[in-house]
Amino acid sequence: MAGPRPAAGLATRHVLAHAEENARLHDYEQGVKSAFDAIVPTLKRISALQHETDFEAQAQAIAQRALGFTLPEDILANAWVAQLDLRRLYAWCTFATYRRFCDDFYTRDPLVVDDETLFNGGFEGFLQTCGFHTLDLSPCADGRLAHLVRYVLRLPHRAVRRKSYAGALFDIEDSIQKWVEVEMLRMRRGLPNTADAPTRYLKAAVYHHSSVAPDQEGCAAHGSDDARAAAAGLERLRGFQQAIENSFCCGASIDLLLMGLDTATDAIRVYVPDADGAIDLGRSVDALALYRSTARLDASAALREVQEAVRRTSPGVAAGMARLIERLIVNNFSQIAYVGTYQGEHYDDIGHAERFIGAGVGFEEIQLRNLMYFAYLHTVEEATVDLDVGLKIFTGLNVCRGLPTPVVVRFDYHGQVPGARERAVGHCRRVTEALKTRYGELFGRGLLHILQVVRDCNADAPIEMLSCTVNAERMAGGER
Amino acid sequence: MAGPRPAAGLATRHVLAHAEENARLHDYEQGVKSAFDAIVPTLKRISALQHETDFEAQAQAIAQRALGFTLPEDILANAWVAQLDLRRLYAWCTFATYRRFCDDFYTRDPLVVDDETLFNGGFEGFLQTCGFHTLDLSPCADGRLAHLVRYVLRLPHRAVRRKSYAGALFDIEDSIQKWVEVEMLRMRRGLPNTADAPTRYLKAAVYHHSSVAPDQEGCAAHGSDDARAAAAGLERLRGFQQAIENSFCCGASIDLLLMGLDTATDAIRVYVPDADGAIDLGRSVDALALYRSTARLDASAALREVQEAVRRTSPGVAAGMARLIERLIVNNFSQIAYVGTYQGEHYDDIGHAERFIGAGVGFEEIQLRNLMYFAYLHTVEEATVDLDVGLKIFTGLNVCRGLPTPVVVRFDYHGQVPGARERAVGHCRRVTEALKTRYGELFGRGLLHILQVVRDCNADAPIEMLSCTVNAERMAGGER
Repeated sequence: MAGPRPAAGLATRHVLAHAEENARLHDYEQGVKSAFDAIVPTLKRISALQHETDFEAQAQAIAQRALGFTLPEDILANAWVAQLDLRRLYAWCTFATYRRFCDDFYTRDPLVVDDETLFNGGFEGFLQTCGFHTLDLSPCADGRLAHLVRYVLRLPHRAVRRKSYAGALFDIEDSIQKWVEVEMLRMRRGLPNTADAPTRYLKAAVYHHSSVAPDQEGCAAHGSDDARAAAAGLERLRGFQQAIENSFCCGASIDLLLMGLDTATDAIRVYVPDADGAIDLGRSVDALALYRSTARLDASAALREVQEAVRRTSPGVAAGMARLIERLIVNNFSQIAYVGTYQGEHYDDIGHAERFIGAGVGFEEIQLRNLMYFAYLHTVEEATVDLDVGLKIFTGLNVCRGLPTPVVVRFDYHGQVPGARERAVGHCRRVTEALKTRYGELFGRGLLHILQVVRDCNADAPIEMLSCTVNAERMAGGER
Repeated sequence: MAGPRPAAGLATRHVLAHAEENARLHDYEQGVKSAFDAIVPTLKRISALQHETDFEAQAQAIAQRALGFTLPEDILANAWVAQLDLRRLYAWCTFATYRRFCDDFYTRDPLVVDDETLFNGGFEGFLQTCGFHTLDLSPCADGRLAHLVRYVLRLPHRAVRRKSYAGALFDIEDSIQKWVEVEMLRMRRGLPNTADAPTRYLKAAVYHHSSVAPDQEGCAAHGSDDARAAAAGLERLRGFQQAIENSFCCGASIDLLLMGLDTATDAIRVYVPDADGAIDLGRSVDALALYRSTARLDASAALREVQEAVRRTSPGVAAGMARLIERLIVNNFSQIAYVGTYQGEHYDDIGHAERFIGAGVGFEEIQLRNLMYFAYLHTVEEATVDLDVGLKIFTGLNVCRGLPTPVVVRFDYHGQVPGARERAVGHCRRVTEALKTRYGELFGRGLLHILQVVRDCNADAPIEMLSCTVNAERMAGGER
């Protein structure tokens, strides 16, 4: 049973929203998604021709025109003997499209932010004037939050740390390691600022809910119960803070921020901390309500209303924290207008509609909603729950239509560390083998295909394709 | 074919060796090992009685007398129906003995070092006068190096970091994390000294070889080729140093030390760095040769000869590094005398003779040679090679005699980090399940038994037994 719908459609215009940027972001999202979505209709057309005499030439012409690349000849050439192997072709096309998408992302930088203009001195500088030297975000792993940084919050994706976890329940040990590394770089290299600057590390958790179908399409990890999701996020944040204080004491601490995202409208809810940085689940600002109440004001009045709403919620809030929250809310207005303009009342795909699964460490290029189900992992053994959920989702999306689940196994590495590339390659192999073992039945039936990829995240490098279960002769989208 | 034997037996006395400490260390080693070694003969006696009428009472009396604990009643009670299940009993006794050994270690602290006396101001202070604030040792995972810190080098085991890896090929990323954490604690808490003190982090790798059977009993990871083992250790050390310099620059660096251990005699070989800290595989000091040439001198002449030998090897060596190396060599003289006194020409058990396998993170109490095969791991998936080697060793030691392989799965945790215990418990369960899956055939035949253990390594706490495949009713060595 679907829950209540929002009372009114989303206004498509707001005095503080950036319509031009929205148009640019929408072009990009459409371009990427339609490339993936062209695969099935194109393969259907090709399938219908498979018994014609000049099949191979026709198929290649269609693929080149509709998809922008040609297909592996050996798969086409075998069609006269057996049926055309459409499962392999589908997986191959998905991987080739993924590769093209990555190459575009890393060469053209389509989501670059003019943050000098936007933040008047750059986002990093802005963040420091708010009292923070790092923004470390942990959203839920759900594909409907994958666009959180660049779309929902309109932040420059390279300036924010993002590590996704099911239910936003980030790993405390992993975050401690990151905190230590950040503080060390401040002390040793003065990056992003020197250690004597009175700024702090800000850790934020982002849970999600669905205003359109709250009981079905909320966070699976919390049984679609948004009160539980919020409470669990807050508990994890406090645990992290306590761990830092217990381990490093002497004034070592961090600041916390909790947010909720409505995956139907992309509107955020921000829990405004009090003067001591304490968060109360009863004290939050709802960006959608503010969007509606301020849409028709002039810009400075709208901005003032946002500022006042934040201070009304938590009168003692620190000035810098308030400034950051105001900025996130105003940025989110653009995304609310984006959804209103291009989707109407809410997203059509309120549920899962990912195109492939990503497993491993990396995937900086994934800044689009519902494109990839992300299982952040080092080993299959530790991530069985996340992977089982992912495979279950793709059973509904693909396998029930006879199509395989495409999985990209990816490990990014720091090229300046000796042997790091070799270890990343080894991780890819190990995880691939473990996936083949765990999902042996699917793999055996051709319903699971795996592409292995590494990337040097310190160089401005493209991805490097290693090997692929589809085709040993020709790598998806490129040469062997 | 066995290689050449050492030319002469080991002198049992050396002017600089500590005979009293040797007697104490030997008592401890004998006590622990004989407790484990009493299990098989005791069970043989009990097995012979299993069809007598007062079997259970007799068996308990024998066990209590010979082993110091009684046996699980259900296993004894079932003997009249089927055969007495000696595999389960053997595993149970091994785990109970392990528990008693741990409890003794953590309550009585039997290997405590009077390091105030030994190092004149404590080892930490001594290390700092040598120019180092941390000594991070990576020996090979082989059980014949498990006594490296406390016996071979006579160092206080709590003051040295030890992480063992097959072939001494330590993980560079893991070491970077540790370095960052250490430097952070210096800056934040002034531990062990403040960050402005001109000391460095010292990383040492320890490979091994066998002077008695060089072609069979050297390091398996390097095909018993000690030149290869040394070269690989040096390469890994240089990789670590380069990684630190590349990532943190601005004077951030570490010092390196390479050592070799002869597992037949416990004599070390130390590669003395030059003025720039560079190590050359052609420049090393052999402790056994020095031991022989200085045994009959007076103490100050012997010490002077050690000092001169170090400086002859690398004339430019930094004064602090030289002082540390001299200390390690002199300490090692005690161990050479120990082996000479209690073993004769060399160890009898030149090969593997471990009593059980340890898998996971922790095991601070393991400071004895050939007691435990240690697979340092977070997941089975990443450690299949180490585990397969361990199970192969125990096929030769136990399974071929019909006895099971006892495996202790252990995860230590930092009690001050919220949720850390729960995560450690979860790791134990996950690793246990993965072991049961990977070695399903052995497990199904009762030839693999697993005990799960956690420990709060920040509290002065005993181990906590979680569950055990031997017996659901009564935990090995204690209550449920």
